[in-house]
Amino acid sequence: MKYYDDDNTICAISTGNQMSAISVIRVSGNKSIEICNSIFSKDILSSKSHTIKYGNIHDNGKIIDEVIVSIFRDGKSFTGEDSVEISCHGSTYIQNKIIQKLIDSGCRTSAPGEFTMRAFKNGKIDLSQAESIADLIQSKNKESHQAALNQLKGGFSKKLNELRKKLIDFASLIELELDFSEEDVEFANRLDLIKLLEKIITELKKLIESFTLGNVIKNGVPVTILGPPNSGKSTLLNTLLNEDKSIVSKIEGTTRDAIEDNLNINGYNFRFIDTAGIRSTNDSIEIIGIKKSYEKAKSSKIILFIIDSTKKIDPQIKEYLRIEKLYPKKIIPVLNKIDIKKLNLDVKNLIQISAKEDIGITKLKESLVIFMNLYKVQSDDNIVTNTRHYEELSLCLIEVEQILNGIRTDVSTEFLSVNIRKSLFHLGSITGEITTDTLLSNIFEKFCIGK
Amino acid sequence: MKYYDDDNTICAISTGNQMSAISVIRVSGNKSIEICNSIFSKDILSSKSHTIKYGNIHDNGKIIDEVIVSIFRDGKSFTGEDSVEISCHGSTYIQNKIIQKLIDSGCRTSAPGEFTMRAFKNGKIDLSQAESIADLIQSKNKESHQAALNQLKGGFSKKLNELRKKLIDFASLIELELDFSEEDVEFANRLDLIKLLEKIITELKKLIESFTLGNVIKNGVPVTILGPPNSGKSTLLNTLLNEDKSIVSKIEGTTRDAIEDNLNINGYNFRFIDTAGIRSTNDSIEIIGIKKSYEKAKSSKIILFIIDSTKKIDPQIKEYLRIEKLYPKKIIPVLNKIDIKKLNLDVKNLIQISAKEDIGITKLKESLVIFMNLYKVQSDDNIVTNTRHYEELSLCLIEVEQILNGIRTDVSTEFLSVNIRKSLFHLGSITGEITTDTLLSNIFEKFCIGK
Repeated sequence: MKYYDDDNTICAISTGNQMSAISVIRVSGNKSIEICNSIFSKDILSSKSHTIKYGNIHDNGKIIDEVIVSIFRDGKSFTGEDSVEISCHGSTYIQNKIIQKLIDSGCRTSAPGEFTMRAFKNGKIDLSQAESIADLIQSKNKESHQAALNQLKGGFSKKLNELRKKLIDFASLIELELDFSEEDVEFANRLDLIKLLEKIITELKKLIESFTLGNVIKNGVPVTILGPPNSGKSTLLNTLLNEDKSIVSKIEGTTRDAIEDNLNINGYNFRFIDTAGIRSTNDSIEIIGIKKSYEKAKSSKIILFIIDSTKKIDPQIKEYLRIEKLYPKKIIPVLNKIDIKKLNLDVKNLIQISAKEDIGITKLKESLVIFMNLYKVQSDDNIVTNTRHYEELSLCLIEVEQILNGIRTDVSTEFLSVNIRKSLFHLGSITGEITTDTLLSNIFEKFCIGK
Repeated sequence: MKYYDDDNTICAISTGNQMSAISVIRVSGNKSIEICNSIFSKDILSSKSHTIKYGNIHDNGKIIDEVIVSIFRDGKSFTGEDSVEISCHGSTYIQNKIIQKLIDSGCRTSAPGEFTMRAFKNGKIDLSQAESIADLIQSKNKESHQAALNQLKGGFSKKLNELRKKLIDFASLIELELDFSEEDVEFANRLDLIKLLEKIITELKKLIESFTLGNVIKNGVPVTILGPPNSGKSTLLNTLLNEDKSIVSKIEGTTRDAIEDNLNINGYNFRFIDTAGIRSTNDSIEIIGIKKSYEKAKSSKIILFIIDSTKKIDPQIKEYLRIEKLYPKKIIPVLNKIDIKKLNLDVKNLIQISAKEDIGITKLKESLVIFMNLYKVQSDDNIVTNTRHYEELSLCLIEVEQILNGIRTDVSTEFLSVNIRKSLFHLGSITGEITTDTLLSNIFEKFCIGK
């Protein structure tokens, strides 16, 4: 990844290369002010940081556009380098023309996330903060926004640094022993060491467990819609989403694959999964579909169990009770088609709806939101939302558990130093104390251009 | 259009409400600095114009985002009012959240083009300049960009003001006569008056004629692809466009409707029109298609006439010569399928290609560009690209021609004053000296939000 290592001045369209009222082109690097000055109608060489100038970008005497130029000098810019932001009219022609002119004048186009990577390299933010910026940009709901912002603000980094400090404290106690190992002295109190390790393990576990929630926040709470064929599952999904995502037909067994879509209700992100109807069938493809329905129900956080009021009720109730026994805490019973036939069923917490006629949908949404209170994020909670962080924390935990085991079974401390080094490595690679080029490019290539 | 008349502070996402590295939210109006100050972590009440502050946008103590805020004070802003631009992370959630917070704090969302309309109302630009901003944003090629920029820079307005001044000069000479009409004096030299009017008419006609070119610049030069069925017209269109726009099949008569698409070659915008193949047929739908092909050829600026080297050549040449006679200056003969069969034809300027194998396409493009030299725009040319301007200029011309006619036939000057007033009205409504609310809303509702 050689382009991550040079000190060229980089440029990119940061507002998405489409037509809009205005567009912003970002330039960062040693020569950014000098380069922009050479294509701008006014002198910005001596402009102070955080000031704006209005003028023209020109190309060999011909005006490309009237623009507004913002100047940021090194210490005070996002990247930690001299930076310029050019705000132009949002024509794709103009955007491309200015980028072309910048390249002709000595810039190169930036790689995805390269501005953020420079901020990291220049010590403005650590790696987990850099990663949170990508999450922040992608956040589509309150919870994911909150988690990403908390991470950007350094909450997660602070927590990791505390853990790291504890591990280093532990290491130094052990190292001391190692220095005098030939004299067979035992300096550290074993019980204190065990206590310290247990505390680290508890905190690591808490972070690791938060990933389940973090994942839910990022990708939505999975909600499986389960029920007999033609009970209106697809119609319900369409009514919820207000669009024709599922193929709705009157022929039983229309939905063979699970169809998924996200919906934001009261700021909560739900991922609805429409499934194949459950019934006895000989159609081999349909059997696969039904098997999938049960799997989806198993792995989801909430199950909407649809009962069709126009069909034989007893077998449906029987099936409901079977599933309810398996997953008591996550099932919501829903009686559908009440526009055709009304029923009084002795089922607890039953929601009565007509998906087709949009009856009872608000009530159904409310009961989904009530479920979500379980997942409420506190603004100071550290939620792991990043798979990489989750993996590193899990690997760190394995090492720390081995250390604890070693201490408990009186393993010679010199055998533990490998585990200590590894555990520190895993923590350090989250915040970026330890990095490799491959790691960096893996992280930043997922960013958008211009960030 | 009551919202155009209030003095509320308005806000909008100016960078298109989609996910991107950064987004810009624009606020303009009396209270913009005060409102932004109330949701921003730093004091900007006393900030100077054209300065930038970094801080947080918050909502009841909770941070929404880390942002950069640019402050513009009235005289020096785009709208001519106090304005603030908030540059935030480009998450749709954050964008909407900040807009929501701005509304809660006293802004209202802007109507399309309302920022530009305020710039017009506050005398920062005239109406034709305001309109050019919409064109500038939509410009996708060199020519349309150049025409819009020239208009924005006031070139067109200057030209109109010259014309207006001449008309007013003329009017004042006539008015003088009217004042003394009872004394039957004739002050102005009739010949001078006629000369002046003729000059005005020449200039008006030049502008009106430029609209044909302006239209070509804006919508592309129409190029019709004509030829017998299955001669590879659709394949050529696809090869030119590099995508499968036309349905290409081996069955003759596949293309029944004209298919159009734009392509930029060397900065010129061509609009290619694929047509139904020309042949004798009894299929009534196909006959309609063939008729359409000829119509398209007639109204386009360039005709690519495709000759199929693998079919009987004589009738094809005959048809070519027939069309060439009708439109001698706009036809380019193209021999296709030279990968299957090579031929030496005695046809002037023949381009030999294989659309399927991508042979000769560069040569074909070159010959298209040569045609375009006819349409070269000089950077100081005033090109009318706007239909409204074209109409007003045409209406103005009618009035001026009536005046000229009146003067020539010695019509009493008092009958001419209506025509004079009307001609001034039409010119003035282009630059906005004369406006109505309906006119303004017609113009600005076509703008994007945030401009």
